[in-house]
Amino acid sequence: MPKLILVRHGQSEWNEKNLFTGWVDVQLSAVGRKEAARAGELLKESGLKPEVLYTSKLTRAIQTANIALEAADRLYIPVHRSWRLNERHYGDLQGKDKAATLAAYGPELFQTYRRSYDVPPPPIANDSEFSQFGDERYADVEPAVLPKTESLKLVIDRLLPYWQDTIAADLLAGKTVLIAAHGNSLRGLVKYLEGISDADIAGLNIPTGIPLVYELDEHLKPTKPSYYLDPEAAAAGAAAVAAQGQKK
Amino acid sequence: MPKLILVRHGQSEWNEKNLFTGWVDVQLSAVGRKEAARAGELLKESGLKPEVLYTSKLTRAIQTANIALEAADRLYIPVHRSWRLNERHYGDLQGKDKAATLAAYGPELFQTYRRSYDVPPPPIANDSEFSQFGDERYADVEPAVLPKTESLKLVIDRLLPYWQDTIAADLLAGKTVLIAAHGNSLRGLVKYLEGISDADIAGLNIPTGIPLVYELDEHLKPTKPSYYLDPEAAAAGAAAVAAQGQKK
Repeated sequence: MPKLILVRHGQSEWNEKNLFTGWVDVQLSAVGRKEAARAGELLKESGLKPEVLYTSKLTRAIQTANIALEAADRLYIPVHRSWRLNERHYGDLQGKDKAATLAAYGPELFQTYRRSYDVPPPPIANDSEFSQFGDERYADVEPAVLPKTESLKLVIDRLLPYWQDTIAADLLAGKTVLIAAHGNSLRGLVKYLEGISDADIAGLNIPTGIPLVYELDEHLKPTKPSYYLDPEAAAAGAAAVAAQGQKK
Repeated sequence: MPKLILVRHGQSEWNEKNLFTGWVDVQLSAVGRKEAARAGELLKESGLKPEVLYTSKLTRAIQTANIALEAADRLYIPVHRSWRLNERHYGDLQGKDKAATLAAYGPELFQTYRRSYDVPPPPIANDSEFSQFGDERYADVEPAVLPKTESLKLVIDRLLPYWQDTIAADLLAGKTVLIAAHGNSLRGLVKYLEGISDADIAGLNIPTGIPLVYELDEHLKPTKPSYYLDPEAAAAGAAAVAAQGQKK
């Protein structure tokens, strides 16, 4: 039966600085590289063997996959990348300090922009230094479809066509699929797979660098609850994500 | 006009030990990783922008590409991997010490196996620890087509269909293509592109980790001589490759 493994990229240079990142293409930090290697070791120990890799078009997710697959001795598997797996576009918040944003918008609007299901932040200006307008990495995508801000709902809207047509095809062929992506694109996928409500998804936090495994039936429905390859570390990691943004 | 960039993987753990490697899946050495990063820096400095990556299915070529593209800030480009870009299969020589092979076969046969155009070494036994028989990385290839030994001619025979149908399609669409592969698969491609004779190809040595650039016309013929991004280092590297196997 098909297996789906999700891994959220490890700490980036901007996570470290507590900045809203979104589509800004930052690198993994040294800590993030270690998390990625640990993810690969967990995969290797588990006996799970990813047969195809999907990543976003963002460096930190690709680095995570490359480091993890190197540690798991499976660098050779086929790879596909899509902007549809990218992190949520944080609009005008991109590049801004989380604490400063909290101070500017107040806790309610700040929390709305971070975690409401369908309220996107204000869009980013094309001439912002943190805009991806004109970025050649997206030159193969119809420009009108590229977001300037996104809610989680909008992330799911652009993610699902890629899931339904492309990733699903590999799973339906019985393959073990690895997706290396981001906190919000993975939350969107988990919401869809598990049928989590619009209200409840706000409480779901995915820890970084710990593979999350789904065993699926022939309709791509989970046959049992999903599980992390290191449940204790996952619980601690999810708590750390939940506490993010509360920092001064 | 289309551009083709070839890069031979850097030093592997077995190059370091002077063993015949072929299809045995060894890692880059620390020196090889540095060579790969240098290749990426050369790409970045050159202003060349690979838009699609092709690799073999062997870890050392994939590591080279990953490290180089990370250094060039282009990890996000699409990737395709094929066994048809693999190193020459060295048959029964795989895993054997080059100096010991030289002593066992004598200089003439040793040189024939290393550099004759069309004489393959004896085939490897399926139960050899250095055989790839049953390796799941090739599970998507018709088993009968997977080699147990190869001459350079046989490498070219299995490489060209992938070049003609797949890599050529990207070049004909005007893309800049990066291929990360091996001494002999790249020698085979260079022989084809430049029309080098069966006799003269023995004298061609491709240095490790230095991008080799072809500018092509609409028939994929070179419009001018190919060039290395660091010609001095390339000349020194080619001389070092030529001296290989002479070591005690």
